[in-house]
Amino acid sequence: MSEEKYKYGYIQGFSALSKNEKLERIANYSGINPDDFKKYSWTEPSVSEILDSLSENTVSHFSLPFGIAPNFLVNGKDYVLPFVTEESSVVAAMAKAAKIWYSRGGFKAKVLGTVKKGQVHFFWKGSFSLLKEFLPELKQKLYNETASISGNMEKRGGGITEIRILDKTDLIQDYFQLDCDFKTGDAMGANFINSVLEKMATVLEKEISEKFPEFASPEINMAILSNYTPECLVEAWVECPVSKLDNIIKDVLAEVFAHRFEKAVQISKIDVSRAVTHNKGILNGIDSLALATGNDWRAIEAGAHAFAASDGNYKGLSDVSVKNGMFRFSIKLSVNVGTVGGVTNIHPLAKTAIKILKNPSASELMQLFAVAGLASNFSAITALIGNGIQSGHMKLHLKNILWQLNASNEKIQMATSYFKNRKVGYSEVRDFLKREK
Amino acid sequence: MSEEKYKYGYIQGFSALSKNEKLERIANYSGINPDDFKKYSWTEPSVSEILDSLSENTVSHFSLPFGIAPNFLVNGKDYVLPFVTEESSVVAAMAKAAKIWYSRGGFKAKVLGTVKKGQVHFFWKGSFSLLKEFLPELKQKLYNETASISGNMEKRGGGITEIRILDKTDLIQDYFQLDCDFKTGDAMGANFINSVLEKMATVLEKEISEKFPEFASPEINMAILSNYTPECLVEAWVECPVSKLDNIIKDVLAEVFAHRFEKAVQISKIDVSRAVTHNKGILNGIDSLALATGNDWRAIEAGAHAFAASDGNYKGLSDVSVKNGMFRFSIKLSVNVGTVGGVTNIHPLAKTAIKILKNPSASELMQLFAVAGLASNFSAITALIGNGIQSGHMKLHLKNILWQLNASNEKIQMATSYFKNRKVGYSEVRDFLKREK
Repeated sequence: MSEEKYKYGYIQGFSALSKNEKLERIANYSGINPDDFKKYSWTEPSVSEILDSLSENTVSHFSLPFGIAPNFLVNGKDYVLPFVTEESSVVAAMAKAAKIWYSRGGFKAKVLGTVKKGQVHFFWKGSFSLLKEFLPELKQKLYNETASISGNMEKRGGGITEIRILDKTDLIQDYFQLDCDFKTGDAMGANFINSVLEKMATVLEKEISEKFPEFASPEINMAILSNYTPECLVEAWVECPVSKLDNIIKDVLAEVFAHRFEKAVQISKIDVSRAVTHNKGILNGIDSLALATGNDWRAIEAGAHAFAASDGNYKGLSDVSVKNGMFRFSIKLSVNVGTVGGVTNIHPLAKTAIKILKNPSASELMQLFAVAGLASNFSAITALIGNGIQSGHMKLHLKNILWQLNASNEKIQMATSYFKNRKVGYSEVRDFLKREK
Repeated sequence: MSEEKYKYGYIQGFSALSKNEKLERIANYSGINPDDFKKYSWTEPSVSEILDSLSENTVSHFSLPFGIAPNFLVNGKDYVLPFVTEESSVVAAMAKAAKIWYSRGGFKAKVLGTVKKGQVHFFWKGSFSLLKEFLPELKQKLYNETASISGNMEKRGGGITEIRILDKTDLIQDYFQLDCDFKTGDAMGANFINSVLEKMATVLEKEISEKFPEFASPEINMAILSNYTPECLVEAWVECPVSKLDNIIKDVLAEVFAHRFEKAVQISKIDVSRAVTHNKGILNGIDSLALATGNDWRAIEAGAHAFAASDGNYKGLSDVSVKNGMFRFSIKLSVNVGTVGGVTNIHPLAKTAIKILKNPSASELMQLFAVAGLASNFSAITALIGNGIQSGHMKLHLKNILWQLNASNEKIQMATSYFKNRKVGYSEVRDFLKREK
């Protein structure tokens, strides 16, 4: 009986229906009033058409707060950073870290590499030594045949920078990789890299077949960029005398703060349970900046976590040193971002986010991503080694519960004062509102 | 000179300014017209106040398409899945996988575990054997002292399910963990777990100090949940006779499809460059469902990627087997989601997303997350081992370029037809529009 609600049957031709027809079908299926979607849908065509065009089967528009944190001093320049997130503490944490470091020399950052990668994965019965010998000739053909695709990218300072063949036959029989390096200027470069690689796959298949007719043609399995970009690398750090760290946590002496902070980072280096959450906190800041600037946060997440696991033990991405009276907190991050192309150039607020950042290059934006990660991590650790995160979270939690219970503005004020030093929980807040009715 | 644009100075008291004052300050700083923010801000208080309350320093609302993919048959039930993403191919990929498997038995899924974790990290000069001996007594105190916090959670079938002390002194001097397991019912449980752990930290400090006065008090470093949840585990799979896989890729025979698919998954198991992108594709589906349902995608990303790296070699999360004429494609995923609490209960469209899913339990939603990941992965692999992903992407890329160039509807139609079999690039499209003027 209770399964009945799930018996609906196959919906034919859904994607071809109009938005209204789609909503009707969903209403029939779920009992949701189409207005529940429409109420949160932009109706002005200049907005709704852009949003709809970003995806398929769009029936509404999901909005998130677009917040800003001022006072980021990075390499001696002032920045206001834009963040889009649903997690209530992120923007506050960013603003707090920015403020603390503004008066202590600010953030520093530098790009260590901008190499992006992609592979053609193929199977072939011949030997690696034959391929190695053939590589110089093959490379020339690959460059020539992809010239029409890379021409524009080369004008923008990018292009294919290296082509290798890797022998993977010890891992899977007959398996080789054409492994390529790319530079993509201010673009994230996914379309460019994938277009080049798909073209290379057809060239490789033809050329190897013709060169070595004694073997069956290579079997191309995939041609695709990699989100593992350990050479697309950026570093950010903050640094000041330990003595300047008094009262970062209220009533905690500088040396004690530095000691606790050092231990917290040390733990993230040797304990996976902590490392994962430590890095999650770093990516709270980074993903929020990615969303705001129209960058692909799944690509950034995948690259960052795999980088954290690259030596075989998953580790925290940040480092701290406390020596000779100096405190230095830093992060090294693999992150591929763009300031042109894709959603960044289409989404109106992503365009505005790029303007708030004063139209940075991709390299400059990489540095700001690393800074956002470091700032987020700094605030999280500071909260954790101080009073814990719940006192701050609970204030926001209270606000959320009050929303859920549809409390009036007057009741919200009363509850905020009442729960200042009391335990916040759903039932406590509900009971409070009942009592005050 | 060019540095001048970054000399703005410290903005005092920014968070206390009104939204309009904030916009003015940003306008002064960046030269952006406040209307660029206001135009994309919800003005109706019932919407804007909720969105603003989710974060801090909110100056606008960032909207993303809310799309749906029907025809997901999961454990014999029909589902329509909601997705929020900026990546154009994701919803189409989900719909495609749903359609293919609807007529082949649908998706199956089951929850393998729902244990969530958290730790109190502390330093103490005494020995592990003393702590081990004290543990039964300490546990009792910890349970008693946190009873007021866990009471409500226990009513909902959750609570603290295990408390251990772990000896980490071989890794860092004097370092121990109070390692706890939790069940959190239909909630993601972050607030509950962190509240319990912070309370436990104070109890642990007091009790160990009193029990062992010969040593200095334990030094609590942090008390915090872990996003590494390898025992919060769900599996999803699809299965059908190989013979039913004809024409999944146009004109490709079933056996050839199965063979190529198997190779593609095999590669993700031994090559990190591929594994990262393979898993990125899985999380394309999962994160989109997370955003739609108000779940924390950074927590899910961190847990999933760390799980992928848990044996020391970062690997693809899905598995395939082709034997005895059967094709089976599966995923095992560590994922912590909730259907009550947090943003899920506050964001109007997240509430609607939960309704579209027919108000699932957290366990049911875990299964749908695994299904979304598997579906996304299936479509990505199918595209990669078929015609590549660029033919589909390029169509969307063309649409995006046309938007950037403000092409009229008429020009969009002309260009779509013209570029059907031609190379799509920014300059080609720009030149086409110039010619057609």
